[in-house]
Amino acid sequence: MTLVNTVCRLAARPVGLPKAEDWQISDEPARTPRDGEFLVQVEYLSVDPAMRTWMNAGRSYVPPVEIGEVMRAGGIGRVIDSRHADFAVGDEVFGTFGVQRYALSDGRDVTAVDTTLAPAPVHLGALGISGLTAYFGLLDVGRPQPGQTVVVSGAAGSVGSIVGQIARINGCRAIGIAGGADKCRWLVDELGFDAAIDYQAGDLRQQLKTHAPNGIDVFFDNVGGAVLEAALARLARAARVVICGAISQYNADGELRGPANYMQLLVARASMTGFVIFDYADRYAQGVAQLADWLRSGELRSREQVVHGDVGDFPEVLLSLFRGGNTGKLVLALEQH
Amino acid sequence: MTLVNTVCRLAARPVGLPKAEDWQISDEPARTPRDGEFLVQVEYLSVDPAMRTWMNAGRSYVPPVEIGEVMRAGGIGRVIDSRHADFAVGDEVFGTFGVQRYALSDGRDVTAVDTTLAPAPVHLGALGISGLTAYFGLLDVGRPQPGQTVVVSGAAGSVGSIVGQIARINGCRAIGIAGGADKCRWLVDELGFDAAIDYQAGDLRQQLKTHAPNGIDVFFDNVGGAVLEAALARLARAARVVICGAISQYNADGELRGPANYMQLLVARASMTGFVIFDYADRYAQGVAQLADWLRSGELRSREQVVHGDVGDFPEVLLSLFRGGNTGKLVLALEQH
Repeated sequence: MTLVNTVCRLAARPVGLPKAEDWQISDEPARTPRDGEFLVQVEYLSVDPAMRTWMNAGRSYVPPVEIGEVMRAGGIGRVIDSRHADFAVGDEVFGTFGVQRYALSDGRDVTAVDTTLAPAPVHLGALGISGLTAYFGLLDVGRPQPGQTVVVSGAAGSVGSIVGQIARINGCRAIGIAGGADKCRWLVDELGFDAAIDYQAGDLRQQLKTHAPNGIDVFFDNVGGAVLEAALARLARAARVVICGAISQYNADGELRGPANYMQLLVARASMTGFVIFDYADRYAQGVAQLADWLRSGELRSREQVVHGDVGDFPEVLLSLFRGGNTGKLVLALEQH
Repeated sequence: MTLVNTVCRLAARPVGLPKAEDWQISDEPARTPRDGEFLVQVEYLSVDPAMRTWMNAGRSYVPPVEIGEVMRAGGIGRVIDSRHADFAVGDEVFGTFGVQRYALSDGRDVTAVDTTLAPAPVHLGALGISGLTAYFGLLDVGRPQPGQTVVVSGAAGSVGSIVGQIARINGCRAIGIAGGADKCRWLVDELGFDAAIDYQAGDLRQQLKTHAPNGIDVFFDNVGGAVLEAALARLARAARVVICGAISQYNADGELRGPANYMQLLVARASMTGFVIFDYADRYAQGVAQLADWLRSGELRSREQVVHGDVGDFPEVLLSLFRGGNTGKLVLALEQH
């Protein structure tokens, strides 16, 4: 019996927010594995702001998704057919399987998922790339010291919500910037942030002054634009700005907005450093072990927003990220037919 | 006999390029020193792009010059009257004496100038704050390794011309960005830069690609704006961007231009760090000793553009900096009446 694979391909390079015409959803026969390959039935797809950047041409930290190519996505699924020595039918695995129902793999960069440790969506969130991004980005690049003030933007997102909690666990003052009162309440009441600032409420700069009276020692930025500028204006001496993302800029259809006040880096003798989580691959195991310890002890909380749907729902789920609707890790759970 | 002091005061905060009305030049009696003070006859004034930033209100790395205050300036002069134990009549000294003919000082941050080592203007340039800025900014913040590619903007200026030479002395490939063919020739033929790019000739990005085919390891920026963006687009993996100045932005009368492509820091896993030379005060002696050694051996060349004039000429001399007219260290030598 030939399986029918539903596939989401990039049809055109979007200008601004991706439109329906920028995607092509189609049904195709799934090829059976050859020697050294296995077939995965994809169950969960990680939906991330960075995906929007992969759709653009030009130099970035990964090659662009080409027109006609399956949209790139991290996912978790079950091996349903295998001619690979290391992967057996029934194995639950993580890999960059793409936005499709069935994925062939040669096993490269595919890892086992221990669902006795936590449900699969957590392995895409706090125990996955999101958690690792927060962990290494904050601790290795941001290097916060106990007692210092850590501010994170996109604080209710999959990475930001972990950043603030790790800051708190490390004895820092953790301040989140998020959109809306509900998210802010969640950060403080549920996740233990010391403060949360609703950037939609206006006067972000004054709020930062109030909540970080001695300045910001580490700013972990997922947002860019006006939020980055507000933080630069409040840097403490020798501050570290960690550049993780710039969601406010990903769908800009004009010129991108750079931080007009970047000379505050000089005023504060501060640094701004970009990083890419893939560079930490040889330390993932250490990071996951620590994150899992914190989850077990209850010091760290994970939240996943799991949307149930089909491959064809992916474009709409991706858009919801840019409307600021999600809290925690956004996961598309593919209905299993 | 009372000395007549000619003083240049800030009369108004300039919008854009400083205008004549933004200054007040006046003759005033020079006060005689009290106990613990001495009087300096100012002979040479350092004229620097950063002066323009001191004229603005708002948070910066030094307090703004207040309206009505003597314009701040580093200078070299001779002690002509003293009631201070450490400074005697006849001493040649460096200090922040301001744009005026006579300056009273209590000796704070005033240092002796050894004119047997080099003429006074060199002590404002290669052996002064300019040289020290190049030395510590490049070596401590930029941390170039032998064989790496160092690109410096404002390369024909007082700091940039030294940066490139120190890079070359340290076994790096030194590339300068400057305005005009004459300056570029000077950098390559006289100072030993490996290449110089005339940004006025257009296609800066293509030129950077040609001259830095493996990317830029250290970018030392004095200019900002489009030049900074062009360099960010060519960063090598783990590059260091040293933020020293932003002369292209100092006279902007609209919103400042931030680097629109700052996310290249992420793509390149690079850092952008601001520094202020005053933080290195306890290592100035070490820096000056090294710079003087290089000058003596001929490995380092210093160039000063000495303009002879009076205190009242300062505003026009300052403007010449922003017209890109100068090569090397710009010094206003006050005519001694």
